[in-house]
Amino acid sequence: MALESAFANFTRRDWEREDVDGTVRLAVIGVGGFARQRALPGIADGEYCETTVLVTGSPDRSRSVAEAFDIPHVIDYDAFLDGDHAGAYDAVYVATPNAFHGTYATAAADREKHVICEKPLDVSERVAREIVDACEDAGVTLMTAYRLQTEPSVRRTRELVRDGAIGDVVQIHGGFSNPLLENADPDTWRVDPDVAGGGALVDLGVYPLNTTRFVLDSEPVGVYATTHSSGPPFDGVDEHVAFQLEFPSGATASCTASFDAHANSQLQLIGTDGTISIASPFGGVVPHEMVVESGDMCMEYTGPPVDEVLEEFDYFGYCVLTGTDPEPDGVDGLADLRAIEAAYESAETGRQVELE
Amino acid sequence: MALESAFANFTRRDWEREDVDGTVRLAVIGVGGFARQRALPGIADGEYCETTVLVTGSPDRSRSVAEAFDIPHVIDYDAFLDGDHAGAYDAVYVATPNAFHGTYATAAADREKHVICEKPLDVSERVAREIVDACEDAGVTLMTAYRLQTEPSVRRTRELVRDGAIGDVVQIHGGFSNPLLENADPDTWRVDPDVAGGGALVDLGVYPLNTTRFVLDSEPVGVYATTHSSGPPFDGVDEHVAFQLEFPSGATASCTASFDAHANSQLQLIGTDGTISIASPFGGVVPHEMVVESGDMCMEYTGPPVDEVLEEFDYFGYCVLTGTDPEPDGVDGLADLRAIEAAYESAETGRQVELE
Repeated sequence: MALESAFANFTRRDWEREDVDGTVRLAVIGVGGFARQRALPGIADGEYCETTVLVTGSPDRSRSVAEAFDIPHVIDYDAFLDGDHAGAYDAVYVATPNAFHGTYATAAADREKHVICEKPLDVSERVAREIVDACEDAGVTLMTAYRLQTEPSVRRTRELVRDGAIGDVVQIHGGFSNPLLENADPDTWRVDPDVAGGGALVDLGVYPLNTTRFVLDSEPVGVYATTHSSGPPFDGVDEHVAFQLEFPSGATASCTASFDAHANSQLQLIGTDGTISIASPFGGVVPHEMVVESGDMCMEYTGPPVDEVLEEFDYFGYCVLTGTDPEPDGVDGLADLRAIEAAYESAETGRQVELE
Repeated sequence: MALESAFANFTRRDWEREDVDGTVRLAVIGVGGFARQRALPGIADGEYCETTVLVTGSPDRSRSVAEAFDIPHVIDYDAFLDGDHAGAYDAVYVATPNAFHGTYATAAADREKHVICEKPLDVSERVAREIVDACEDAGVTLMTAYRLQTEPSVRRTRELVRDGAIGDVVQIHGGFSNPLLENADPDTWRVDPDVAGGGALVDLGVYPLNTTRFVLDSEPVGVYATTHSSGPPFDGVDEHVAFQLEFPSGATASCTASFDAHANSQLQLIGTDGTISIASPFGGVVPHEMVVESGDMCMEYTGPPVDEVLEEFDYFGYCVLTGTDPEPDGVDGLADLRAIEAAYESAETGRQVELE
């Protein structure tokens, strides 16, 4: 691909290769802020999924949400596990606090429902592997909900890297900070280590981590990390994290994440022949801004926002309807969990931890 | 300082507090590319220094340079050490390959000449300390030539940090890559570990390192680094380096440098209440571009280039003429050398190395 054509049809769905009929009927499990504000609208506005069941701890309080999105069934968690309305959905979107992903994803797989599960797959690699195994045994699709993998600027970046537009990637800088307490109470489950599985690294750092692995199409062989917390409510988890990944080529990724710094998100790749910078890659529905330097050439692109959550659910729906294996599958989710666990081990020991 | 006034008089010399007369007469020791292309023009265009002696390995070949800059004396290294034309200069600018800094800086100090010495002060902390001691014993000014410390956007950044415009700094990303072989032969002394003291970290990584220390006004307590070389001519030194600094506040700096990646330079500070980004901070005479987010406010500044090398020599001249201690003094240079040696130890051992 010549650089001049890199930005042509910027928002194209390169993954959409055949016509499909119908939709995947979803049970959305867990109705928190992200589900209400991003997932349910994205599903409703997309082509290939529809929400038919809401699963929530407080069905009464979720009725208005169900009405707003025209969702016929609202049940609680126990009812879901008992199989209520199991005929009304083909797949589940697991958006509970992290520690409960395993319970609901595995229950869904056992009932031969496809699964799209929020990242991280669970709080431990062991339970995450049980999800992967359950989906494999049931022959259902498992996708880890990495919305960035359907985000156009990230996909265009991967294509440019693959086509050698910036030569060999040498160094990456990635960061994502999002002040948690501006949008959540201090008692949010995200600061409970048992329920969240970690802090800023698990919730935010996973974006530069997963996106780096995606655009390089390579697995890190080592990780070093430091974590820092200034006190309550972050005394149980990492409020801030800085980590450095090392890849087999010798490339490194210098990444940061924070629950308590000014909102910011960035990704920059520096290669032997050029650079790619994406402004605000991880931060939600914002205009696309991307700068590519390739040799003596520099091109800048600014385009309208694309709702990558809509893209993500349409990608999942497309994969289920066509029998396509999603790229962000269970193995992808497991790889991030391994890197996260290694990063926490590194932060404890002050040593680089090798990854297989 | 209110954010609105942060950019007023952007290029002001806040360090210039009194009127001074006269100039400092300089012997420029070592006439390599940087001396010819940046230092000699900067000295000639500035107010407080003038070059009166060139010290070079090949006086015959440097005559045209001397003529171009109207420099009366050209001598070789031995003649300098013998004291030739010692009455014609008040200070020396040491711009030899790194391993020879100690020899010439110490000889100058012993002759009661002031010293501005290129970074690193020497290839070893031990010799660098001898320079510091010699200058202290002689009662002469010693400045380490950190041109960034007189660069307006870096000075404005330090003021904004000090004034709390972005709250507490949490994370920094800094990088500097400059393809060495585009401007140098493969046998350049910069890839000889005995003469250079290291590779990309020593030559380029020191910019984000020193600038981070400067804008935070804080010393790192730990460093982790990985280095990588792809082969000749970089088999003796680090072609690429990624390092992570940790500060007492818990702040981290994620830094990279490369001799062989696309030319790039960046600095970004992420604080609890805002961010500061400088485009191309380390890369030479380019337009200033700086973006400051502070709470809900965002201000962008783009101004004409400032020659920070001119600024640097005027600052040195001003310090000598007024008896002011320069900020980038010998102790500042020693601190970077300690961090660099610790970073190389970390790259060898895979461990974080603590700094005193």
